[in-house]
Amino acid sequence: MSTADSSFDEVTAPDEQVRAQAEARQARLTKPEGSLGRLEQLGNWIAACQGSCPPHPLNRPRVVVFAGDHGIAARGVSAYPPEVTGQMVANLLAGGAAANVLAEASGATVRVVDMAVNAPTPESVRGYKVREGSAAIDRQESLTPEQARQAIAAGKAIADEEVDSGADLLIPGDLGIGNTTPAAVLVSALTGAEPVTMVGRGTGIDDLTWMRKASAIRDARRRAVAVLGDPVELLRTVAGADITAMAAFLAQAAVRRTPVILDGVVSTAAALVADSLAPGARHWWIAGHRSPEPAHRAALEQLDLTPVLELNMRLGEGTGAISALPLVAASARLLSGMATFDEAGVRDR
Amino acid sequence: MSTADSSFDEVTAPDEQVRAQAEARQARLTKPEGSLGRLEQLGNWIAACQGSCPPHPLNRPRVVVFAGDHGIAARGVSAYPPEVTGQMVANLLAGGAAANVLAEASGATVRVVDMAVNAPTPESVRGYKVREGSAAIDRQESLTPEQARQAIAAGKAIADEEVDSGADLLIPGDLGIGNTTPAAVLVSALTGAEPVTMVGRGTGIDDLTWMRKASAIRDARRRAVAVLGDPVELLRTVAGADITAMAAFLAQAAVRRTPVILDGVVSTAAALVADSLAPGARHWWIAGHRSPEPAHRAALEQLDLTPVLELNMRLGEGTGAISALPLVAASARLLSGMATFDEAGVRDR
Repeated sequence: MSTADSSFDEVTAPDEQVRAQAEARQARLTKPEGSLGRLEQLGNWIAACQGSCPPHPLNRPRVVVFAGDHGIAARGVSAYPPEVTGQMVANLLAGGAAANVLAEASGATVRVVDMAVNAPTPESVRGYKVREGSAAIDRQESLTPEQARQAIAAGKAIADEEVDSGADLLIPGDLGIGNTTPAAVLVSALTGAEPVTMVGRGTGIDDLTWMRKASAIRDARRRAVAVLGDPVELLRTVAGADITAMAAFLAQAAVRRTPVILDGVVSTAAALVADSLAPGARHWWIAGHRSPEPAHRAALEQLDLTPVLELNMRLGEGTGAISALPLVAASARLLSGMATFDEAGVRDR
Repeated sequence: MSTADSSFDEVTAPDEQVRAQAEARQARLTKPEGSLGRLEQLGNWIAACQGSCPPHPLNRPRVVVFAGDHGIAARGVSAYPPEVTGQMVANLLAGGAAANVLAEASGATVRVVDMAVNAPTPESVRGYKVREGSAAIDRQESLTPEQARQAIAAGKAIADEEVDSGADLLIPGDLGIGNTTPAAVLVSALTGAEPVTMVGRGTGIDDLTWMRKASAIRDARRRAVAVLGDPVELLRTVAGADITAMAAFLAQAAVRRTPVILDGVVSTAAALVADSLAPGARHWWIAGHRSPEPAHRAALEQLDLTPVLELNMRLGEGTGAISALPLVAASARLLSGMATFDEAGVRDR
């Protein structure tokens, strides 16, 4: 498969001139300089992404959950049976999942996309479905070349749809039993980390399951390393349709100049590849949180991203990123809503 | 002065039976057990504080900013001139301060109380005012016995007013040029830490100012240690009217079974004393964040509190605690809003 089929337009950087304006404005707001810490950096980043200082309030943050099953789950790498993926799609559509509750609390809405769930799902979510379950990556390519093309086109199209519908911030969510295994494979292959150091507890696995997961990651990593130079081939070989679409979604969000809050190990693994698909895309992302998954830490370091939160969350669905959303939204409001020293008649140092 | 004048009713603990119910409910919600990390603990704590599982949504979180000037500021311990305190009271009342913007973004309201501002302030905020500027604590007691009694009565009354008005969560904010100096004195005296290790950069002081601040803390600490066994005398000697009222406010909030999010070094120093005023009060508090002030870290360790956020914030006004409020509110909503495995028809592990 040629990468030309899956190419992305050039990523332009957030507006550094506006970022400098925002930094200058921070110094005039009624607070000691730098005293809002990370909130100042977040606000300046939002301003630079929007090209506007002060930035507009975030009016339409949108969570897109990419759901898919993974054949590797059949090797017994997860604490949960594979049918949970389809059941959780229904739960998300009914509003009962953690991502729904957190999104509602922070003014975001949630979309679910079935990329490769191994079960029937409602028509509303399967418009981009590529297959029922991606193949077991310890021995097979996760997708055929045509399926990889479809998954990348889906991720691009979904990002375009959301941005065209007015989304001003995007959050990728993952849903799929076994999906931390391909994520660990991608991170291990792309960072050079020893696979065994990348094996996390996922949804909470026991020692025997951990050993099976470690074997699966080691075997799949060998296959990944052989195609490391070609991000599309890499996704096709080990990512599955959901993570492939997510990587394309993240790349296209950057092409479309839309800020993104990354979630856990799965979305950060997808982001590692997306920054190869569309170089410079990482400047449009922040890390919402850091989970206990070791591959998450490695991926964040590779992308040079410092997480906003560290709350020991390891649920997926975008939940860690959504938890950081109120802070990001508040950081934008601080730049527009606070009085300056001059306006308030407060003496500066 | 007898402490009997300033005694508090007994603090009863949050409801451990309800906390256990909340823990059991977390295990039935559609997520891997424990996967919401700190958010689960926060939700369980809110449930225990309310005595209700699932907990009610937080409908009336309230920030109370205790404003006061400190005579020690005349020794040149701050980067800002003392008149800024009064100017910032006006800014808070006009809605232009960081605390206003963050509170509005998270559904909280802000009240300002002038305890000892060295400037004229609007009548609406000076009903409890004790004096204009507390005395310079390196050489004097910060308050007279009668003023200490007044400040404690004020803090108690303010907590009662807020709880009686329906506040379901309280956040103490501090405002006062020079106030990290008495805070560091309290923490150093109560934890036994060497005073020089407790001297932070406050609002951003230079090295010369830092040395003056270190001297002031060392001198005031000697006076504090002499009255360490009596929390009211300790407050009177070194805390000033604002921090004294805040300590009483925190103690009374616990008496009234109302959860509190602590902010930075000033409110955590007040909390250290409040837990002596009303033993067990600490179980009604969480730490919203950790600032770079070294005395903040020491005080949190002494209270055995783990901060929710660590964003390098050092502004005061309650801003770090207000930043954590959306997470606390969301943690309560997760317990009430998420579906259980049974409800959603999702198979558990």
